[in-house]
Amino acid sequence: MAVNGDAAPSRTIWPAEDGQAVMVIDQTKLPHVFETRRLATLEDAAAAIESMVVRGAPLIGVTAAYGMALGATADPSDAGLERSAERLLGTRPTAVNLRWAVDGVRSAIASLPEGSRAEAAYREAGLIADGDAAMCSAIGDHGLRIVEEAWAAKGHRGVVNVLTHCNAGWLATVEWGTATAPIYKAHDAGIPLHVWVGETRPRNQGASLTAWELGRRGVPLSVIVDNAGGHLMQHGLVDLCLVGSDRTTADGDVANKIGTYLKALAARDNGVPFYAALPSSSIDWTITDGMAGIPIEERDAAEVTHITGRTADGSVESVRLTPEGAPAFNCGFDVTPARLVTGIITERGVTEASREGLGSLFPDMT
Amino acid sequence: MAVNGDAAPSRTIWPAEDGQAVMVIDQTKLPHVFETRRLATLEDAAAAIESMVVRGAPLIGVTAAYGMALGATADPSDAGLERSAERLLGTRPTAVNLRWAVDGVRSAIASLPEGSRAEAAYREAGLIADGDAAMCSAIGDHGLRIVEEAWAAKGHRGVVNVLTHCNAGWLATVEWGTATAPIYKAHDAGIPLHVWVGETRPRNQGASLTAWELGRRGVPLSVIVDNAGGHLMQHGLVDLCLVGSDRTTADGDVANKIGTYLKALAARDNGVPFYAALPSSSIDWTITDGMAGIPIEERDAAEVTHITGRTADGSVESVRLTPEGAPAFNCGFDVTPARLVTGIITERGVTEASREGLGSLFPDMT
Repeated sequence: MAVNGDAAPSRTIWPAEDGQAVMVIDQTKLPHVFETRRLATLEDAAAAIESMVVRGAPLIGVTAAYGMALGATADPSDAGLERSAERLLGTRPTAVNLRWAVDGVRSAIASLPEGSRAEAAYREAGLIADGDAAMCSAIGDHGLRIVEEAWAAKGHRGVVNVLTHCNAGWLATVEWGTATAPIYKAHDAGIPLHVWVGETRPRNQGASLTAWELGRRGVPLSVIVDNAGGHLMQHGLVDLCLVGSDRTTADGDVANKIGTYLKALAARDNGVPFYAALPSSSIDWTITDGMAGIPIEERDAAEVTHITGRTADGSVESVRLTPEGAPAFNCGFDVTPARLVTGIITERGVTEASREGLGSLFPDMT
Repeated sequence: MAVNGDAAPSRTIWPAEDGQAVMVIDQTKLPHVFETRRLATLEDAAAAIESMVVRGAPLIGVTAAYGMALGATADPSDAGLERSAERLLGTRPTAVNLRWAVDGVRSAIASLPEGSRAEAAYREAGLIADGDAAMCSAIGDHGLRIVEEAWAAKGHRGVVNVLTHCNAGWLATVEWGTATAPIYKAHDAGIPLHVWVGETRPRNQGASLTAWELGRRGVPLSVIVDNAGGHLMQHGLVDLCLVGSDRTTADGDVANKIGTYLKALAARDNGVPFYAALPSSSIDWTITDGMAGIPIEERDAAEVTHITGRTADGSVESVRLTPEGAPAFNCGFDVTPARLVTGIITERGVTEASREGLGSLFPDMT
C-alpha cells in the first residue's frame, strides 16, 4: 500500500536500508509532524513502545518482535534473550499481542546456536509482520463485500458514507488496518467513499490519526465530534458503520474504544448496518458476557481535562479544558452487546455476532 | 442563590451599584478566569451579546432588555428606540428570546413621554429578569420531585447520579438554570448528588461552564467525555439524565445540543429516566415532527478542528486538533424523538413528552 507516492512507507514498520535497524513512524507527533524514527537497539524498541511512538496492538507486537532481534544482535546468549524479553514485556504489561510476539521470537531461536540467533530473530519478526499484513488484507477483502453491498443498495449513486470511530487503522497495524482495511480496499476498487471520522475523545485518535492516514491515501473524509454520529444517521447520511475491536467475546460482544456503544445504538435506531472488523486473535473465547467479563480500564483523568494540539505559531502544546480542580473520570473502552452488531468481519470472512456465527468460522477455536 | 459566599453574584446579570449600568459575568473567559463586565451603553450590551460575553437564550433576552434601557437613557426619542432595537436585534438574528425581550421593553415604554422612558425601560427589564428567575425556580421545584423519586428508588442510600449535557445552567439564564435547577434545588434540600458533566464537544460548554458553576456551588461532579455516558449507564452509574432543550415540538420532540440523542438512546437501552427541563417559551406549538420540522444549524468547522484551553504558563490559547487541511463538519443540535423522553419538566409541572401531555399543562397554547 503506497502512501502518497513512492517515498512514503507502505508499512508502519520496515527494516532500515542498511539492515542494522528498523524504522517506524513517530505517532506521538502525528497529525502535526510526519517523522520516522530509527530503532537500532533493544532499548530503542522498548522506549518506542513505552512512549507510544508506536501504538496499536498489532504494531506493538511487531515492534517487540524486532526488539527481540535487536537484543539478540547485541547479546544472543540465553541470559540476553531473557533480559530482552523482560524489558519488552514490561513496557505495556497488559498487551496480549506483545507477549505473543516476544514469546514467538524467543521460542523460534532458543534452540539455535548463539551465532545464528540474531538473523533468525529478524526473519521471525519479518514473518510476524507479514502475517499481520496478510491478516488485515484478508479482513479488507471480506469487508470490501460489505461496502459493495452498501454501494449496490444506493443503486451505485452518490457516495457510500462510512462512519468510523477511533483508529483501527493502518497506523495501528503493519498494513491496511482492521476497520480501515475495507475502506482502503473499496477506495482502491473505485467505489466512491466518504468517511465520517469521529474524533474519539479523550485521546482523539480519530481526529489525529485516522484523519491523517485517510487523507494521505486520498480518501474523502470529514472529521466530526463524537456527538454528531446519531444526528447524521437520523438524516440518512451514514450508510455503514465500521469499527475495530480491542476484545470480542465468544458470544460476539465487542469491547472497543469508549463511545462505540453509543454509535451502535444510533445505528440500530436508524437501520444502519454496524460492523466490527477484527483479527480472530482478539476474540477471547473464554468470555461470553462482555459487560460482566471484560474489565474496563480506568485511565488518567488528565486525558479528559487536558488536550494537545498545534498553536498558531506551530508549536505543539497541551491546554487545560476544565476549571482548575474540577474532577474528571476517564474510562477507556465500552462494550457493545452482540445484539447491536450487524456482523463481525474477520480474516476468515464475515459472520453474525453470535456464538454460532463465530463458531462456524472458527470451529477449531470453540 | 448565593455563589460561594456573599461577594459572588446570585444572578448572572444585575444592576450596578451606582444605577448607571448593568453588570454581567464575562463568560468567554470561563472557566479559566472569573471576571465581571460593566455594560454602560447600548453598544456595550450589543457587543456583549455579539461576542458571547453573555450567552444562553434567557440571558441574551434579559441583556437585550437592559440594552434597550441603556439606549433609552442616551436617546429616548422614537428614532432612538428604533435604532436601539435594530442594533440589538442584529446581534443574534435567530434568537427568539432576544426579539421577544426587545419588543417587550419597546411596547412597554413607547406610549410614555420621552422623559420617563428610560426609567420605565429599566423597570421592565427588571421584570423580565425576575420573570425568568421565577420560571427557572419553578422548573427546579417541579424537577426536584424527580430527583426525590430517584433518591427514594435507591432506598436513600449512596448518591443520586445525574448525567447532564451542555450548559442548561445558571449561566445561561438569570438564576437557577433549566436542567441545573432541579440539581441546585435537590442539593439545597440535602439530597446527596453527584453529577456526570458531559464535556459537550465541540464548544465544551459542559467541561467549561457547567463544571464551573456546579463546582462554585459545591455540587459534587465529574467531567466526562461525551463518549462515556453510555458505558456509565450500562454499569448502573447513572440514576437520572437531565438535559435542557433549545426547542421542543408540540409532540414532545426535543432539539438540544448535538449528542443529546445518543444519551437518550443509552438511557432507554438501560432503563434510566431521561428528562428535558425547559421553559414553555421554548415549545414551538407550530411544529409536530422535530426531525422534519426543526432546521439544524450548521456551524463553523473550526469549532471541531480547534479548541481553546489554558496552557501551563497560564495563557489561554487555541490549538488545532486535526491534520492541516482535513475537512470537518459541524452541526449544532440534534433532535431526540419524544419516544425516548421520559418526561418534560416545565414551569407548570412535569408531563409526558406528547401532544396530550404538553396540551394538558398548556391548554391555553394548543
